[in-house]
Amino acid sequence: MMIHPWSAIAALLPVQGTMPLLLTAAPEVDSALVLAGVLLSLAVIYVASKVGGEICYRINLPPVLGELIMGVVVGISVLHALVFPETGGTTENSFIMQLLADTTSLDTQVAPETFAAISEVISTLSEIGVVILLFEVGLESNLKELLRVGPQALIVAFVGVVVPFAAGTAGLMTLFHIPAVAAIFAGAALTATSIGITSKVLSELGRLSSTEGQIILGAAVVDDILGLLVLAVVASLAKTGEVNVNQVVYLIIASTIFLGGAILLGRFFNSAFIKVASALKTRGDLIIPALIFAFVMAYIANAIQLEAILGSFAAGLVLDETDEREELQKNVIPVADALVPIFFVVVGAKTDISVLNPTIPANQEGLIMALFLIIVAIVGKVVTGAVVFGQEKINRLAVGVGMIPRGEVGLVFLSVGRSTEALSPPLEAAIVMMVILTTFLAPPLLRFVFPNPNEPSTAIAANSDANSET
Amino acid sequence: MMIHPWSAIAALLPVQGTMPLLLTAAPEVDSALVLAGVLLSLAVIYVASKVGGEICYRINLPPVLGELIMGVVVGISVLHALVFPETGGTTENSFIMQLLADTTSLDTQVAPETFAAISEVISTLSEIGVVILLFEVGLESNLKELLRVGPQALIVAFVGVVVPFAAGTAGLMTLFHIPAVAAIFAGAALTATSIGITSKVLSELGRLSSTEGQIILGAAVVDDILGLLVLAVVASLAKTGEVNVNQVVYLIIASTIFLGGAILLGRFFNSAFIKVASALKTRGDLIIPALIFAFVMAYIANAIQLEAILGSFAAGLVLDETDEREELQKNVIPVADALVPIFFVVVGAKTDISVLNPTIPANQEGLIMALFLIIVAIVGKVVTGAVVFGQEKINRLAVGVGMIPRGEVGLVFLSVGRSTEALSPPLEAAIVMMVILTTFLAPPLLRFVFPNPNEPSTAIAANSDANSET
Repeated sequence: MMIHPWSAIAALLPVQGTMPLLLTAAPEVDSALVLAGVLLSLAVIYVASKVGGEICYRINLPPVLGELIMGVVVGISVLHALVFPETGGTTENSFIMQLLADTTSLDTQVAPETFAAISEVISTLSEIGVVILLFEVGLESNLKELLRVGPQALIVAFVGVVVPFAAGTAGLMTLFHIPAVAAIFAGAALTATSIGITSKVLSELGRLSSTEGQIILGAAVVDDILGLLVLAVVASLAKTGEVNVNQVVYLIIASTIFLGGAILLGRFFNSAFIKVASALKTRGDLIIPALIFAFVMAYIANAIQLEAILGSFAAGLVLDETDEREELQKNVIPVADALVPIFFVVVGAKTDISVLNPTIPANQEGLIMALFLIIVAIVGKVVTGAVVFGQEKINRLAVGVGMIPRGEVGLVFLSVGRSTEALSPPLEAAIVMMVILTTFLAPPLLRFVFPNPNEPSTAIAANSDANSET
Repeated sequence: MMIHPWSAIAALLPVQGTMPLLLTAAPEVDSALVLAGVLLSLAVIYVASKVGGEICYRINLPPVLGELIMGVVVGISVLHALVFPETGGTTENSFIMQLLADTTSLDTQVAPETFAAISEVISTLSEIGVVILLFEVGLESNLKELLRVGPQALIVAFVGVVVPFAAGTAGLMTLFHIPAVAAIFAGAALTATSIGITSKVLSELGRLSSTEGQIILGAAVVDDILGLLVLAVVASLAKTGEVNVNQVVYLIIASTIFLGGAILLGRFFNSAFIKVASALKTRGDLIIPALIFAFVMAYIANAIQLEAILGSFAAGLVLDETDEREELQKNVIPVADALVPIFFVVVGAKTDISVLNPTIPANQEGLIMALFLIIVAIVGKVVTGAVVFGQEKINRLAVGVGMIPRGEVGLVFLSVGRSTEALSPPLEAAIVMMVILTTFLAPPLLRFVFPNPNEPSTAIAANSDANSET
């Protein structure tokens, strides 16, 4: 009957109230109701992702844009079907919590704890979703091609960090008379590139394995690491007035060893993976070893202060060389289909677009700064296409546009900047607007600069079959 | 860079400490570390499931037994790699928390909260795993065959509830002089059948769609509902001395309407599902509508005080009739492969087998009662095979044995019984032992009574192709 954790077995400890309808025990969070709330949230997320994705597909836009927008619709900005405590959600304004209260035995005393538990599970599932997305992107990528375009990706990333940072910081100081530390933080927030959104759009356009796609992907990975360095520098600068050189050196060494090590040991991982997978006789013989590898690499990346998604991307990249790749991809696709939409809908749901409303007086000062930041954010990345060298028929505009979305990344700068109390409220709002608009503009812009998805101009023959499966 | 929830966007609220290494902000749970802990826990779970499953497969036992046993090995009983707060786990005895503390920037002040969040996510994932398992079991089942064996399943379930309950209660009162209320609770705990473990073993043996398999499955579903009724009766009996007739009538009506409605509306759901799935053009066109249906049905079942797994089972059963079933099953299998092992390993990990240790004096009184309960638990279910009628070549022993595992179900009775303070500690320990042993004995016993998995004696031709895919 009741499927509950075996909460009662060990040591016969006091257990959670598993049957609250039958007994009026001390109020505790009921794990059955957490499950019910999570299932309901997932149903809302899936409906939103399909409605948004299908509409965008039909009007010839990347489906992920629809997932983001429908996320906004079901989220804190509009319907409140899916809200989170850390972005203003409460048990009172959450539709799912109200439905739980109306239809189940939810104890109102523990409603906030139940809400927090549901939100924690959904947030973590969305983060597992992007870990899986980057694993799949790694599988779709071609390590040799990525290494071939490595020098171009490096320079694209470098220019895409320096130009927006310099232009943003200088412009805020001279045009808006923002103090140096605040201007540096805002400039730093302009440097980031959201690898998740960029790679998903490229995959949907069938361009991930094109030369442009691989340059963008490589540059986004490098950008990720450069962003961590910039953040380490500006954070220590804001706190102590000095740059923490040790932290910067550590990050450079750790990221080099991690990515270099993954690539160098790739052949070993590969043959080990093949041996394990072919020895297994029970269900999940491919997907489970692959997930173990992806999750362990994600953990290691996290532990050495890089990011979980860099680890799973490296894992996918390594297994891309495997003979079993096609079969593995077939197994990963349904898992990704079930988990990845959670990430994009949750990103949308946590976005409060009221900050964009010009009729709210408090937004107006920020709007002018936001306009400046958005121009710098777009121009500063679009110019990076110009520095690609050694590629004749490259779509330079597409490379630059691919670097535009800031996604959640810019917000990490914001949260660090806020904790140092360097930023004024209008500047904070301006950064949020810049992040929202670059994120939501990038998918249609990318669609526009990659006009014909069925005739890739510079596709890589060796890997182009991967596109058809996505 | 950092993949974090867009915690900063909405209303510019104070955000969680996303970069704890760079700043020493107020200690709050770091969502990146929750993610890291969850990924590490999943890696441990997957390794345990594969090691256990493969060993059992090679010695000709159901792989799920290996998953349960390796769960015990990595759990609270042995290695402490995977422990849960509600079953005696602490940040100090959790290997994963220690590893997090050693390798990441875990703030020791919020270690307990981080541990709780990680455990909540893993527990919920394990419950989603069993929801998916029952959805897959529903897809593998044949609604027509299930309805055909319905009368047999009903009588098997009924006898399998009455015999253990009567024998257990009477035996405890006469042989052990247990007070009536306590004896009734212990007797009630003997009635349950774990649908998750039974169906998984049957699927692994390739017997789920055999006549015996469908009788067991049908009986387990009915048993689930009968168990809820028994629980409602004994709980109100223990609390007020009277039977809450309203509750019992409600449960009978709700379960009848729910299951009957799902079956009657099956054709409608089916054609709606096919229409939606064939209209969808983006990725996940089959798996996402299927998961929406399964999760909504699970939620409804939960909301009407039945169980989530009954809802997803009904959803799978309905979609079993779909033309797209084979394609859908292919998509569900990798998702099930990724989620179902979490359930079985977590069940094992939460089991404290120290209660079985006869050298601990406190266990000895319970051990004798446990011996009695285990005999009643096994004999009381095995006899149910004898009452199957109208089936000539039926493997009656297999039907009875299939009803043996109590799984987590018996423990729900225990937790309710404990909260009424009716049970003595030795009787509680005896119930726990009965649950552990019936659960762990059933898979090898089922393997034994179904000797040759490749030659199903009474397989259903129409559905036997499903077996080859499992």
